[in-house]
Amino acid sequence: MNLKDRIEMLGKMKSDLAGKDFLLTWEKSEQDLRIIIEVASIIKEMRAKNISPRVFDSGLAISNFRDNSTRTRFSFASASNLLGLAVQDLDEEKSQIAHGETVRETANMISFMSDFIGIRDDIFLGEGNKYMREVGAALDEGFQKGVLPVRPGIVNLQCDMDHPTQSMADLMHLQDVFGSLENLKGRKIVMSWAYSPSYGKPLSVPQGIIALMSRFGMNIELAYPDGYELIPEIVEIAKKNAMQSGGSFSISHSMSNAMKDADIVYPKSWAPYNIMQQRTQLLKTDDKTGLKELEQVCLANNAKFMDWEYNEAKTKITRNQNALYLHCLPADISGVSCKQGEVSSTAFEHYRIKTYQEAGFKPYVIAAMMFTNRFGDPAEALKSILDRNRKRVDL
Amino acid sequence: MNLKDRIEMLGKMKSDLAGKDFLLTWEKSEQDLRIIIEVASIIKEMRAKNISPRVFDSGLAISNFRDNSTRTRFSFASASNLLGLAVQDLDEEKSQIAHGETVRETANMISFMSDFIGIRDDIFLGEGNKYMREVGAALDEGFQKGVLPVRPGIVNLQCDMDHPTQSMADLMHLQDVFGSLENLKGRKIVMSWAYSPSYGKPLSVPQGIIALMSRFGMNIELAYPDGYELIPEIVEIAKKNAMQSGGSFSISHSMSNAMKDADIVYPKSWAPYNIMQQRTQLLKTDDKTGLKELEQVCLANNAKFMDWEYNEAKTKITRNQNALYLHCLPADISGVSCKQGEVSSTAFEHYRIKTYQEAGFKPYVIAAMMFTNRFGDPAEALKSILDRNRKRVDL
Amino acid sequence: MNLKDRIEMLGKMKSDLAGKDFLLTWEKSEQDLRIIIEVASIIKEMRAKNISPRVFDSGLAISNFRDNSTRTRFSFASASNLLGLAVQDLDEEKSQIAHGETVRETANMISFMSDFIGIRDDIFLGEGNKYMREVGAALDEGFQKGVLPVRPGIVNLQCDMDHPTQSMADLMHLQDVFGSLENLKGRKIVMSWAYSPSYGKPLSVPQGIIALMSRFGMNIELAYPDGYELIPEIVEIAKKNAMQSGGSFSISHSMSNAMKDADIVYPKSWAPYNIMQQRTQLLKTDDKTGLKELEQVCLANNAKFMDWEYNEAKTKITRNQNALYLHCLPADISGVSCKQGEVSSTAFEHYRIKTYQEAGFKPYVIAAMMFTNRFGDPAEALKSILDRNRKRVDL
Repeated sequence: MNLKDRIEMLGKMKSDLAGKDFLLTWEKSEQDLRIIIEVASIIKEMRAKNISPRVFDSGLAISNFRDNSTRTRFSFASASNLLGLAVQDLDEEKSQIAHGETVRETANMISFMSDFIGIRDDIFLGEGNKYMREVGAALDEGFQKGVLPVRPGIVNLQCDMDHPTQSMADLMHLQDVFGSLENLKGRKIVMSWAYSPSYGKPLSVPQGIIALMSRFGMNIELAYPDGYELIPEIVEIAKKNAMQSGGSFSISHSMSNAMKDADIVYPKSWAPYNIMQQRTQLLKTDDKTGLKELEQVCLANNAKFMDWEYNEAKTKITRNQNALYLHCLPADISGVSCKQGEVSSTAFEHYRIKTYQEAGFKPYVIAAMMFTNRFGDPAEALKSILDRNRKRVDL
Repeated sequence: MNLKDRIEMLGKMKSDLAGKDFLLTWEKSEQDLRIIIEVASIIKEMRAKNISPRVFDSGLAISNFRDNSTRTRFSFASASNLLGLAVQDLDEEKSQIAHGETVRETANMISFMSDFIGIRDDIFLGEGNKYMREVGAALDEGFQKGVLPVRPGIVNLQCDMDHPTQSMADLMHLQDVFGSLENLKGRKIVMSWAYSPSYGKPLSVPQGIIALMSRFGMNIELAYPDGYELIPEIVEIAKKNAMQSGGSFSISHSMSNAMKDADIVYPKSWAPYNIMQQRTQLLKTDDKTGLKELEQVCLANNAKFMDWEYNEAKTKITRNQNALYLHCLPADISGVSCKQGEVSSTAFEHYRIKTYQEAGFKPYVIAAMMFTNRFGDPAEALKSILDRNRKRVDL
Repeated sequence: MNLKDRIEMLGKMKSDLAGKDFLLTWEKSEQDLRIIIEVASIIKEMRAKNISPRVFDSGLAISNFRDNSTRTRFSFASASNLLGLAVQDLDEEKSQIAHGETVRETANMISFMSDFIGIRDDIFLGEGNKYMREVGAALDEGFQKGVLPVRPGIVNLQCDMDHPTQSMADLMHLQDVFGSLENLKGRKIVMSWAYSPSYGKPLSVPQGIIALMSRFGMNIELAYPDGYELIPEIVEIAKKNAMQSGGSFSISHSMSNAMKDADIVYPKSWAPYNIMQQRTQLLKTDDKTGLKELEQVCLANNAKFMDWEYNEAKTKITRNQNALYLHCLPADISGVSCKQGEVSSTAFEHYRIKTYQEAGFKPYVIAAMMFTNRFGDPAEALKSILDRNRKRVDL
């Protein structure tokens, strides 16, 4: 289908995304998720065809990373730039935030000419998503009381609960590989814990994956060793989603068994929920001894499950011995980035390029989240872009 | 009045701002200050009406912060972006400046494609403003000798003497609240020291306020405990200004007395002038023990004046029990950001949103300083912007 | 010659630069080097005449500095901005690269919407240029396999072997001072070691200078104290170049003798090749004691050659007592930036402004490297820019 027809089709879906932050996929309707993915896909095609989707002549996109990041940072910068916004980092080391300034005040101070704020805050369990909502409430007040000329939209770039730009990029990748979202119905996807020689990895990726993929009729199997639970409420959401979408949801405790007949596998390490709770307390009190001890306990516990590695033997169990491998990257690759890790080097190498392509959807997902936040009728806005025919490389 | 008429009115004032750095408000004529405020206000209205005042297709604005900052940093970034410039940080930790490179050389090296340099240098008394002039002299030489294609303008983003983007934003806020600059005549504004459990806060805000507000016929009362003097020369300037503008200037040593019948109050902590001189010496010699001792002495001294808190009792003394509260933010709010501070939480809460609005003028003040530095006839330039009718959100 | 005619002349040279990284000047044909210099010069004139050569409506230029930098960082930012690209720093402290992520993966992750990557990696001998090629190979793979929509071009912003944006800027400066590249034929240029009270300065500048200037028929004299050799393979390249271009190449061990009848002098400190090899090993093993010891040995050795200072006595030996002084800056100026250094303050002062002008060509060289990487027919592209007549200051 050409761009014009795709945009016309898109116009048949009514968006409820305008003016609303993107914090959790499960707060959005299935149709809204489809709209974002289609807008992302159209913008991707536009850029590939040298059509510039730039809609802002000026404006800032604030990048607020409370944890390290390369790929999400660059994805956010790319999306902002594509739409015409300059990224301004809110670096807490550089700023006065670290010195007791309230979230409420800062949210307004940085937003006089801001159109979007992207936030990563995934270290403290129970805090990250809450922080984003605090920022949102401050922006609401500022906008209502005439402090801010527009209400900047917030994009969750990973919190303690969800990692929606990741899971939506993963979903776009599945759409790309399997041909359509409809083709995902009935597919088995295994979100599996995997061994890693590190600890404290956030829960947001597995949580985000089970909560999102369960919306599209897939059969989800969540596999992890005893004790490596996710946040129970989010598991419940995934269960309910699966039931409603005509898929299924199950939990198991053997990686090998889980992989049986899988169409899609996502082997990735994470820390146990209750450990993350303890860790959050220790981080808050800055208890360095406690943190060291907890790390030792965790690593020792992890070490019991070194056979939770995705490798060729496990690949053979999957459907046609060829399940699609997903990862948010970087993966802990045995013999490459660590001695023994989440995935064997041969299993990873087989899908290495595909994981790069998977990651390549993220900038467009973010751009689509921004675009649909700002334009109530995204199809109409995209049509204007198509009609004006401005070039990205402008010669 | 509509934008077209406002621009026409503006055109009746002849600007002397082109090509001149903005370092101290008292180096500018009253008319030039009025021009900046009107240009800022027009640009603000344009942006609100989705008219893009972007005038640079490319170009850099250098951000040189020698002290921490959130709001001024974002204001500078916003202003630069609005006019079409990309911000490039000159981060002395990243750069070679820290390794003995001369100011003169660096000023030229960063300016081959720069249109503006914003500098914050407020830590060393007797140094910050001097440093800006050194940079300016280096740029003059570079431009005259053909090194630089244009002479980048310098904007003082806070020095040891003045904080002109702050005081001018405050003045715009007063204009907004009281209806016009003319309406400020005869109003009583109290710039008062206030208690804070920290020390070493710069003098530039109170100095900037008394030196600027005295230009517009206000009755200035500067209140502080004995020993908390400002730089004497700047106090003299404020006195002279007040006389010339038909206002008055007085100094007193009781916050409560000072607040009597005040229309506007600005309670804010600062360090005593002579302490700042000692501190500058200690900082220069990196005398950590001396700095610790000085801090102890100062905090002990501060603690004698914990009743210098702006609170409801003091509010009641002001005109109609309702003086406008100003602050450059962040304020030390008792029970919120500290145990006991500059302002009680109820007094602050009453004007919290207004302080946000106050801060919201700063990006436009900076944009106007840049705009009038570059365009000798700002009204004509604004008219071109209005006529071309380019949109900020371009759909 | 006017811009139109210059562009027409340029069009007579066929470029082989499109789609190829700029890593070493000696990998490029003489004609390609001439094309870059002419494109840089045309873009410089355009900007001076307020013609905007912006060709990207959006896009990122990644700045990857593995060593400190002010002037090259700003030059890269300026060039990127002039062409319409936003700079995104890949700061290894902020990113996950430091945590074992492979070069291959990161190169792709940052490049989904990137048009150029500028890399400085000059600390480890045998590593910097190799690293750039690893990045390049990863980008090739990503582009071929559909991960990346375009293959971002790499610009070497200084490596262990060459510093091409510096040497090309120096060459533009010589063209400017002597009137044309042809006028450089038969000129004597002395690349001389000079004393500095620091150690470990990279070899890339002297290597880059002898390898590039030898392409244009100059008589190169490389002068250094015994033991301060450069990488032998690069010296061989310079020799061969000199032979082919009708110039000459010689090595000597006395600064005073070398300066005799010099038209151009480039006195600059560097570390001995074999010391850099030892240092690289010590850095790799993070052997702090070893590094300190090596530094002491080197400084003691340097101190034997404190008379290798370029000063008025040496100036008098040069042609007409007035050789053109070059330096990449910052220079170690005796009595200014150090007690005793590479150049006396009077000798430096005489050419200070000229060294600023020399540095001023760098942003345009970088812009031209990008431009010719992207546009196979740069003359045609420049003609389009001239024809569309877009203004940089757009009023």
